[in-house]
Amino acid sequence: MDIKLTTGITLQTSKGENLLQALKKNGIYLVSSCGGKGICGKCRVRILEGKSRIASPGKLEPRDIKAGITLACQTVPRGNIFIDIPKESKLVIGDRIALSKSGDLLELLKFLEANISPIVRQITLTLTPPTIEDNISDLERLRRSLEEKDMIGMRFAHEFVSSIAQSLRDSEWEVTLGYTVGNDVVYISPADTKKDRYGLAVDIGTTTVVVYLANLTDGALMDTGSTYNSQMRYGDDVITRIVYATESGGLNELRDAVITDINDLSSTLLERHSINKEDVESVVVAGNTTMTHIFWGLNPAYIREEPYVPTVNFFPRWRAETAILKANPRAPVFTLPCIASYVGGDIVAGVLASKMHRKSEIALFMDIGTNGEIVIGNKEWLVTAACSAGPCFEGSGIRHGMRATEGAVESVNIDPVTFEPALGVIGDVKATGICGSGMIDAIAEMFLKGVIDQKGKFVKEIKTDRIREGFEGPEFLFFRDNSREVVLTEVDIENILRAKAAIYAGVSLLLKEVGLGFDAIERVYIAGGFGNCIDVDKAIILGMLPDIPREKFFFIGNACVTGAYLCLISKGLRQEAGIIASKMTYIELSVSRGFMEEYMSALFLPHTHMRLFPTVKKMLSDSK
Amino acid sequence: MDIKLTTGITLQTSKGENLLQALKKNGIYLVSSCGGKGICGKCRVRILEGKSRIASPGKLEPRDIKAGITLACQTVPRGNIFIDIPKESKLVIGDRIALSKSGDLLELLKFLEANISPIVRQITLTLTPPTIEDNISDLERLRRSLEEKDMIGMRFAHEFVSSIAQSLRDSEWEVTLGYTVGNDVVYISPADTKKDRYGLAVDIGTTTVVVYLANLTDGALMDTGSTYNSQMRYGDDVITRIVYATESGGLNELRDAVITDINDLSSTLLERHSINKEDVESVVVAGNTTMTHIFWGLNPAYIREEPYVPTVNFFPRWRAETAILKANPRAPVFTLPCIASYVGGDIVAGVLASKMHRKSEIALFMDIGTNGEIVIGNKEWLVTAACSAGPCFEGSGIRHGMRATEGAVESVNIDPVTFEPALGVIGDVKATGICGSGMIDAIAEMFLKGVIDQKGKFVKEIKTDRIREGFEGPEFLFFRDNSREVVLTEVDIENILRAKAAIYAGVSLLLKEVGLGFDAIERVYIAGGFGNCIDVDKAIILGMLPDIPREKFFFIGNACVTGAYLCLISKGLRQEAGIIASKMTYIELSVSRGFMEEYMSALFLPHTHMRLFPTVKKMLSDSK
Repeated sequence: MDIKLTTGITLQTSKGENLLQALKKNGIYLVSSCGGKGICGKCRVRILEGKSRIASPGKLEPRDIKAGITLACQTVPRGNIFIDIPKESKLVIGDRIALSKSGDLLELLKFLEANISPIVRQITLTLTPPTIEDNISDLERLRRSLEEKDMIGMRFAHEFVSSIAQSLRDSEWEVTLGYTVGNDVVYISPADTKKDRYGLAVDIGTTTVVVYLANLTDGALMDTGSTYNSQMRYGDDVITRIVYATESGGLNELRDAVITDINDLSSTLLERHSINKEDVESVVVAGNTTMTHIFWGLNPAYIREEPYVPTVNFFPRWRAETAILKANPRAPVFTLPCIASYVGGDIVAGVLASKMHRKSEIALFMDIGTNGEIVIGNKEWLVTAACSAGPCFEGSGIRHGMRATEGAVESVNIDPVTFEPALGVIGDVKATGICGSGMIDAIAEMFLKGVIDQKGKFVKEIKTDRIREGFEGPEFLFFRDNSREVVLTEVDIENILRAKAAIYAGVSLLLKEVGLGFDAIERVYIAGGFGNCIDVDKAIILGMLPDIPREKFFFIGNACVTGAYLCLISKGLRQEAGIIASKMTYIELSVSRGFMEEYMSALFLPHTHMRLFPTVKKMLSDSK
Repeated sequence: MDIKLTTGITLQTSKGENLLQALKKNGIYLVSSCGGKGICGKCRVRILEGKSRIASPGKLEPRDIKAGITLACQTVPRGNIFIDIPKESKLVIGDRIALSKSGDLLELLKFLEANISPIVRQITLTLTPPTIEDNISDLERLRRSLEEKDMIGMRFAHEFVSSIAQSLRDSEWEVTLGYTVGNDVVYISPADTKKDRYGLAVDIGTTTVVVYLANLTDGALMDTGSTYNSQMRYGDDVITRIVYATESGGLNELRDAVITDINDLSSTLLERHSINKEDVESVVVAGNTTMTHIFWGLNPAYIREEPYVPTVNFFPRWRAETAILKANPRAPVFTLPCIASYVGGDIVAGVLASKMHRKSEIALFMDIGTNGEIVIGNKEWLVTAACSAGPCFEGSGIRHGMRATEGAVESVNIDPVTFEPALGVIGDVKATGICGSGMIDAIAEMFLKGVIDQKGKFVKEIKTDRIREGFEGPEFLFFRDNSREVVLTEVDIENILRAKAAIYAGVSLLLKEVGLGFDAIERVYIAGGFGNCIDVDKAIILGMLPDIPREKFFFIGNACVTGAYLCLISKGLRQEAGIIASKMTYIELSVSRGFMEEYMSALFLPHTHMRLFPTVKKMLSDSK
């Protein structure tokens, strides 16, 4: 039986299998907090055509059911079926690529002209079996055979040597040896059987952790998993994590939290594909500098103290064992190099995935995640800076702020006459809060319709009950019912303006540092999960993105994990990552002359200097 | 107050300190099983001059007390004192060098023209402190500073990197780095304070374990410790250990046993000198191939199976952490390379200490320990073989055999007329058994006085009650009292003849392999604790040692630990050890044509061909 998706993909399903299982088997993961028991009501899909048996409607409301919504875990197709997976049902992170399966990434590899060349190399050796006349030790026999192939200086770890006597005899002296560029031997296996080779690419985000499982023989992406970073219970942003690690001595707790996240995801992936952890022969990790330090158990204290010095930017290739990862203990772990305390390996990975470092055109790379990092450059040069935008777009510090999950207002339209808002809510449920893209929409709309002025203050002349005096000052009421209200306060708006001003000023200043204007930018890559949801027009009205032609903007999703995956697969791309990191010039904005001026100018909607936002200016005059 | 010893050494003692403590403080260790409580009665010394206060006579007999014997732990000098330490009171192993302190070893180093060049090298770096303009990471700063000194490719272990942020700041950016030849960084310390540098040299014998503590700054031997190898509870010889490790799955038990022995000895040494385990920066271990494999937790199974292949001969420089040793976890462990399954690193160490590999003269090196290994050669060439002599000289398989401890018959003289034996017993106590040197003496005497014939059988014509029929056949009664008898049976004699024949045949065959005769041997080095007690004349009568001029024989004590110590101190000598191991040719006697013939001929007293033993022949004709 077939399951056809509105995305154009068709999957196979077996009789009796429910939709949740069928989708999962094909690498498509739905939110299912209860694990497929029909309780959480998260794995909603819409049946467009075809028959199915529905065990229970779960928590679905009558109008949902009327609209064809059903819970995937409770639904067993009775024949071919055509379904739509609403955005909110998909696991938010990595789903873009998970849905398109590994095809996209293999395309990217092809585009990058990357050979499949994993971190662990292989050599096959045929040893002469020992005799009483030639009874040198097993290790010397192996070394002799390597020397015959001009391979000298191999480093043999103790546990490896512990196993060779048996391995060599079991494989009848014909072996395949896995080793790293640093000449550390990783494994030995019989030469005649095809060795399974797997790798993990890990994106350690401040908010989310994503793991990709790759087949290193053909480079295929086999599966993905993602979860929130459990470190969140210790604070939302990197600064609170550093404080927790250093002042409360919580470094190991934070480390354990994220390692557990990664291992839980890996375990699920390995179990699902019946992969032995010993066959995970290499791992790539990418994260911002603080996340990378915590992952390796390095005290991040000095990242936060002037002159902002990380302990390591270019990490040695330590072993999976050292990181306590679920993999062959000797598997090398390649860590994407960091640039500085606030521009990490995630950005290097992102730039790599964007390919901007290979082109002549000047591009702007923006990663708007828990923080904001920007890169400008091309194949000749790259400059970067961190904008202390803060995590407000992820809901932190905003009265009714929340992440982009069910119940979040994600789009807003305001009636120019009545000032009544029309809300787009994730999951088509009642609003429970407002997420980053909702905030951008809301502020842009309020500004465009004259509800707030250029400074983000409510316009007193507006006649609407929606504006009221809250306990923090004036606020706009977007939604209310008996149990819940959703507002944006002037204080919220101030916070959002500060965040967007930090980003815009960062880009602006970075351009100035290299003597260019916004018009020099030929392409803008917007990376990060949040980036994908942004309405470019609204973000320009907000003054967060520069007012340049819309066709220059490209959303590239989770470029960090893509970059990590590329490094897992290709030697050339690992080297490119190193080159990117080496040649990228870091500009410390906080000490740059002119930053405060740029920032202050950007605190307005869209900007103090309206000439910088010609299309917004026109829009405003058109709307009057 | 002074303590003068009959060996010529004078030591200082403080008021109130007992002799056991005073000797220990000066590196002289007495047997004191009870730990100095006056109970075991082992730490006997003889006072020749001077007054002392004796707390308790302990278990001493009136005749001991009359002879000036006292227990060192119960005796506090009241002024200058002159004492003799009976042989049986000294800790048997390593005492020779412990008594002469480190002077001998430093002399040896001087003789060998060895510089003090420990395994861990040092470099001092002055780093530029970070600023906002120069805020590369700590590790890159360290690397940059190393590169300025043309040092590239350093390998930084994870735990090391974990500590550098603090270390660099604590030492105000002026640091001393300790690293190995393999470019693994071992430690970092402030440049302005003198770093304590210590090392351990370990001899892992089948029967005994010896640890030397060295100061790596000046090369001085600071202290020594020795104990029986606790693996003995699993069997006396290497074969029973291999069987236990492989067939009973007891590898880890055996490993734990010997590691615990080494660590117990090390702990005592470190505590005594208030040394921090982190400051033990390198370790050298030497042992036979089986002991070395077990030490590293490597399955010794294939050592015992034809074609007798060890897993490793040349061991990688693994870390102290891997060996679970009490030292800096990153301290490199240098393992003396092994030659083959039955000629190990102990022999390489012994040859190194003997210096035979540096001279033109052809020398014979014999290590008669639990097994017998022999080396013949000079600076041009070296050949080696193992003789399966078995552990009978250590008492194993001999009815009343025992090790050379109190109560062991160590010398025998037989009256040519009455055939009554006069016994030398260790500790001047009643005989409880017979040790290796006693066996050699006894058989040589019995043969010389006509009690046994050339085949080792009792001569029926001899009129003495000492020869009687025991339950195993004929035996000679050396000692009896109400509670105890000490005999040598014909079966015992057969065993001993087999052992001595194996040794002699080994030497003989090895000489034949290189086309030389016994007269070509210019010097014989006898190594091993047992070797030191042998009466050369008697061993020649037995036919264990070749009948060559007595002045060619040299006893060199525990050459294994000496060699290990030399490797700990000097890079040149480590390299020499490697060269010795590489150029030594191993001859597998068990498959050599002619071995059985040689062996059978050597089963006689002293040999089938009396022409090979001209002085014994003369002695026999003189005694007739």
